[in-house]
Amino acid sequence: MGVNELEIGGAKRAREAYGLDDIAVIPSRRTRDPEDVSLEWSIDAFTFSMPVVAAPMDSVMSPESAITLGKLGGLGVLNLEGLWTRYADAEKVLAEISHVDPQVATPLLQKLYQEPIKPELIRQRLDEIREAGVPVAGALSPQRTREFSDVVISAGVDLFVIRGTTVSAEHVSSNREPLNLKEFIYQLDVPVIVGGAASYTAALHLMRTGAAGVLVGFGGGASSSTRLTLGIHAPMVTAISDVAAARRDYLDESGGRYVHVLADGGLGVSGNIVAALASGADAVMLGSPLARAKEAPGAGWHWGPEAHHPHLPRGNRVEVGSAGSLEEVLLGPAYLADGKTNLMGALRHSMATCGYTELKDFQKVDVVLTKH
Amino acid sequence: MGVNELEIGGAKRAREAYGLDDIAVIPSRRTRDPEDVSLEWSIDAFTFSMPVVAAPMDSVMSPESAITLGKLGGLGVLNLEGLWTRYADAEKVLAEISHVDPQVATPLLQKLYQEPIKPELIRQRLDEIREAGVPVAGALSPQRTREFSDVVISAGVDLFVIRGTTVSAEHVSSNREPLNLKEFIYQLDVPVIVGGAASYTAALHLMRTGAAGVLVGFGGGASSSTRLTLGIHAPMVTAISDVAAARRDYLDESGGRYVHVLADGGLGVSGNIVAALASGADAVMLGSPLARAKEAPGAGWHWGPEAHHPHLPRGNRVEVGSAGSLEEVLLGPAYLADGKTNLMGALRHSMATCGYTELKDFQKVDVVLTKH
Amino acid sequence: MGVNELEIGGAKRAREAYGLDDIAVIPSRRTRDPEDVSLEWSIDAFTFSMPVVAAPMDSVMSPESAITLGKLGGLGVLNLEGLWTRYADAEKVLAEISHVDPQVATPLLQKLYQEPIKPELIRQRLDEIREAGVPVAGALSPQRTREFSDVVISAGVDLFVIRGTTVSAEHVSSNREPLNLKEFIYQLDVPVIVGGAASYTAALHLMRTGAAGVLVGFGGGASSSTRLTLGIHAPMVTAISDVAAARRDYLDESGGRYVHVLADGGLGVSGNIVAALASGADAVMLGSPLARAKEAPGAGWHWGPEAHHPHLPRGNRVEVGSAGSLEEVLLGPAYLADGKTNLMGALRHSMATCGYTELKDFQKVDVVLTKH
Amino acid sequence: MGVNELEIGGAKRAREAYGLDDIAVIPSRRTRDPEDVSLEWSIDAFTFSMPVVAAPMDSVMSPESAITLGKLGGLGVLNLEGLWTRYADAEKVLAEISHVDPQVATPLLQKLYQEPIKPELIRQRLDEIREAGVPVAGALSPQRTREFSDVVISAGVDLFVIRGTTVSAEHVSSNREPLNLKEFIYQLDVPVIVGGAASYTAALHLMRTGAAGVLVGFGGGASSSTRLTLGIHAPMVTAISDVAAARRDYLDESGGRYVHVLADGGLGVSGNIVAALASGADAVMLGSPLARAKEAPGAGWHWGPEAHHPHLPRGNRVEVGSAGSLEEVLLGPAYLADGKTNLMGALRHSMATCGYTELKDFQKVDVVLTKH
Repeated sequence: MGVNELEIGGAKRAREAYGLDDIAVIPSRRTRDPEDVSLEWSIDAFTFSMPVVAAPMDSVMSPESAITLGKLGGLGVLNLEGLWTRYADAEKVLAEISHVDPQVATPLLQKLYQEPIKPELIRQRLDEIREAGVPVAGALSPQRTREFSDVVISAGVDLFVIRGTTVSAEHVSSNREPLNLKEFIYQLDVPVIVGGAASYTAALHLMRTGAAGVLVGFGGGASSSTRLTLGIHAPMVTAISDVAAARRDYLDESGGRYVHVLADGGLGVSGNIVAALASGADAVMLGSPLARAKEAPGAGWHWGPEAHHPHLPRGNRVEVGSAGSLEEVLLGPAYLADGKTNLMGALRHSMATCGYTELKDFQKVDVVLTKH
Repeated sequence: MGVNELEIGGAKRAREAYGLDDIAVIPSRRTRDPEDVSLEWSIDAFTFSMPVVAAPMDSVMSPESAITLGKLGGLGVLNLEGLWTRYADAEKVLAEISHVDPQVATPLLQKLYQEPIKPELIRQRLDEIREAGVPVAGALSPQRTREFSDVVISAGVDLFVIRGTTVSAEHVSSNREPLNLKEFIYQLDVPVIVGGAASYTAALHLMRTGAAGVLVGFGGGASSSTRLTLGIHAPMVTAISDVAAARRDYLDESGGRYVHVLADGGLGVSGNIVAALASGADAVMLGSPLARAKEAPGAGWHWGPEAHHPHLPRGNRVEVGSAGSLEEVLLGPAYLADGKTNLMGALRHSMATCGYTELKDFQKVDVVLTKH
Repeated sequence: MGVNELEIGGAKRAREAYGLDDIAVIPSRRTRDPEDVSLEWSIDAFTFSMPVVAAPMDSVMSPESAITLGKLGGLGVLNLEGLWTRYADAEKVLAEISHVDPQVATPLLQKLYQEPIKPELIRQRLDEIREAGVPVAGALSPQRTREFSDVVISAGVDLFVIRGTTVSAEHVSSNREPLNLKEFIYQLDVPVIVGGAASYTAALHLMRTGAAGVLVGFGGGASSSTRLTLGIHAPMVTAISDVAAARRDYLDESGGRYVHVLADGGLGVSGNIVAALASGADAVMLGSPLARAKEAPGAGWHWGPEAHHPHLPRGNRVEVGSAGSLEEVLLGPAYLADGKTNLMGALRHSMATCGYTELKDFQKVDVVLTKH
Repeated sequence: MGVNELEIGGAKRAREAYGLDDIAVIPSRRTRDPEDVSLEWSIDAFTFSMPVVAAPMDSVMSPESAITLGKLGGLGVLNLEGLWTRYADAEKVLAEISHVDPQVATPLLQKLYQEPIKPELIRQRLDEIREAGVPVAGALSPQRTREFSDVVISAGVDLFVIRGTTVSAEHVSSNREPLNLKEFIYQLDVPVIVGGAASYTAALHLMRTGAAGVLVGFGGGASSSTRLTLGIHAPMVTAISDVAAARRDYLDESGGRYVHVLADGGLGVSGNIVAALASGADAVMLGSPLARAKEAPGAGWHWGPEAHHPHLPRGNRVEVGSAGSLEEVLLGPAYLADGKTNLMGALRHSMATCGYTELKDFQKVDVVLTKH
């Protein structure tokens, strides 16, 4: 894009990029009643009463907590390559993880995720959710999508999520034929949310595959060590805003297809959710904030798929503790002012204070860059 | 305003904003005697010997400490929606708060502030102050102003403060008819100080309501978690300077009405007060510095109205300790070099060192931006 | 100056200013032998083998350590308003200070410095130094210079230092006639070093008084809380460089008078000394680095004159510990790599690595701004 | 270069410089298979399967660990002025260092390195490495190169390293005739890697001496206190990129000589290695990451040559602990996500994620500047 580029040496240029803690929203001349604020969010044929999608992580979503979240008005997404589809008795395995000593947590995760994925468990878990009458959504990584997508589709999902650390529309490999996202999505009946992407170009290409939504970021903010290990980092505000620019340009290019932008990663407190939506996101995919719910399968611990890579783990099992029930986390009431409960009440209040009643309009709110 | 705006992503611009710790004043070629410095500040018909207004917070002002402050030359403002107007025996309730365990402080505050406000207590508390012969000032939130302003006015106040986290001249609500600030202020006999506001536009509209003063900031710096919970933050230097620009433009537009700018929030030490006045403030509204006085009703603890919101608390009860008597805090002598006592001596000394003897002139002092 | 000014709000501009830790020097294409480096520094008729002047602080210089420093090749300056001229048995008082509890250190200092200054002790202390055959230098504050300068001059000094937090050529007072620096310096036989100043204009006016040297900064970096209490702070790199610009312009204006620029304050480690000279200083005035010497009267503690102000202390007694003998501190050898010993060896090595052999040339060395 | 220069005061300009933690690489529209990534690196006639050269430091390389590294595909460089060429029983001396109390570590190092270097030990150590069938490389400082290079050359090395804190092509001394690098390199049969250099000009002059590679940085990132003691610091990203610009210009000037750029210093975790290569480095010289290997002679401790300078130590013995075997450190598998094991796996993965399969191409990867 060429925006804000600096010469950082004689042979290299870099662009300044900003994270969620670097910005804050500011009120203007008009204020609103929090009661007048709508948090409604629609994607494809589905309408949710809050712009919240749960991250498909084993510490965040079980079939049961996906149901609870769906009933509260959000979208639960089950990790279809996780413990729930590898073990019939996933609770036992989860209990083992929550009790293991920190120093050996990674080797234990590496071992437990060696267990093969069972197609029948994929089916069974999705059935449980469907029977509860809430929208059914599951996630696969791009590496395993080809292998398990038939099972997933035949089991029936309302929304399908393809989520990896970095997902591109053009994966080149000399060893195996990569997933052709465009063909795959074209053949599917269900809307697909795909990512993470962190740049204008990457997102634009993902939009052109026909995806209904694009995940921005690399996920697993709290539990990830991607920057430390891989040197990769895409500060969220700049990433979201760049992908929002791709959404705008693709809307024009496609003659009207509005692809949703979902911020995924680094959204630890309600103030971060506000900053993500102010930067241009349509909705947020939450990991650690929901891992703090009493219903979360992680039992106070949180980890992402990158934490159990067999030879290059890039994340840790981190302690997140418990903040209250899933309902208290999302809808309150809050008994502490730490940004971890009543996330939607905080969002509603922030929008009202800044004079907005609709999420889409709130993307235009004034923001400031601050040092602290 | 368009000043210092940066493109922070493909679809978003932001403005760099600065806080009180980001700047420092610098001396120039002339120095003055501290004894020659005047700290006199006048608003409407009232003249004070220091530009200090106490924040209407229950941890800061009791009727008694408002009297003490008035006698020292400042302006005490009583919170008319606080414990003093809810409980006949407020001291007992304050003692309960100062002894509660930190983990359950917020729920206790939420419970105690459920008690209804008693009009007769409003009257009684204001009477106590008036009888002492000092200026009488009380504060209501914009939400409760309609309900209790008649009581307040009939009880008699010299200055009336309408203070909320964010107060706009144009509050839009579909549920209840909002306070029409302009009409309300027009009908009142007493000068009104209103806020917080944090931008040029918001402040200009408040000035047009006829207010005598505008509060800049969101209050409760030390005890607030507004940024964490709501993602809202307005660094004070930029906010004060923007509102000062509105003051200048409104002075012209109104043909000579000078609306006072009061910095409210984040003024923890004397160096911060210097920075606020150097940024363009006419006076400061102090919370935590006065909560540290021996006479403060909080007994070493400090909290703001946002801390007891029934379902979305956005502040905490924080420990501020004791720094000395109210006189020592404001006028010294100091026995520690921590910026918490002899606040006015420090201001006087700083002005003299930079070559200024009047507060209004000091708004022009040279400042530098620093990293640390 | 208008350099690097930013609009920090609608009604205020500020300039970015940099401190000693913000910059670093970088080597270029040529290196030199450390043995070829000269650290010689001359002011007026005096030549020193190192560009080091001791800060006139009671924790730094006693008559005895001033003699030791003189013999090592630097310039010791005795505080003529300190304990050595108030108490015949200063050692006893110093011992009391070094043993007092931190919480009551400030009140003790406030009490001890109430003792009147004795002209006969001024004479006696200066005599002790002169008898040792090293250059004699003493310091007064601008407030007391009128009162004691006659005693000092008649006692005989080679260099006279007028040092205050901020010293201007134009002090305005309605209570007492201020010191007319220009007249005073004109009448004196001895060269005068005066400061602190922190801006181009302030320094230029001091240079016009006839001073031989100007102190840059507010002194007492380690022990000062000027920013916290007064909101005043002048980052040293920008201040030194601005005063160096005044030196250059005054050299032209005066037809050849070269006024020396001495960096005073915040020079905690040898790397800071390098940065100060690289920014344009001719020499450095050292406080805490010399307070760490075994011979220092502070016995491991350090405080400045601002620490014992009777009603507004703006500094603290801080623990600096012991780093070795004065000789080890300045000339090594060092047994730790913490920048606290062999300060001159480090300077010599840094200059050689960057290709310089003369202090004046080293003012042109390339520097970089860094985040950390 | 004039790039990004700022006026930091009236008489001084500085350039903003960036370090490895200031930048991050970002993926774009294409991703690759990690298996398709080649980490091959060739210099002169030698090809390595990874772009890794061990720092010639006593805590990093013994003859034995140099052999192990060579067999793994990297290049081990032995410090020929270290303990292995001073003591027949170097293991005993190393054990002493690893057990000494932190406070007296520097004096012990100063004492142990007083022992003279033995030419026969140089020969013997290099023989040990040659016999194992891996490339043989040894390092001398520029100060000792004249004295020992004949021994080294006659003993036989495949690559010769001349490494000092700062090495220039033009060392000026009035005491001894300095090493004429150009002549020296011209006469040698073996390729020479020389440095550190940190600027465009310094590197260009080193390239003109005929060197095969230039080391960028001052080495010893983790254990160095160069900035604290000497005020010298060259943030690595800017330094590497400047030297890469010199490589490009010298390639043109010389009609096709490609001089390799090796980042040396501050490469603590795999993410730093990624940042160094993304900034333009062809390979990395690793200290602390290899000192963490079980085979490292430092036994969990790490120090550089500057740590035992007899009168001006500029580095410390630091504890680095143990991260696994040398093979695990470089090639994995990793059992922790801390960037300290499987460094090459991480590099491979990062390149693939960003769409690159060759190291040279990866120098063009997009990078962002971030606050954190």
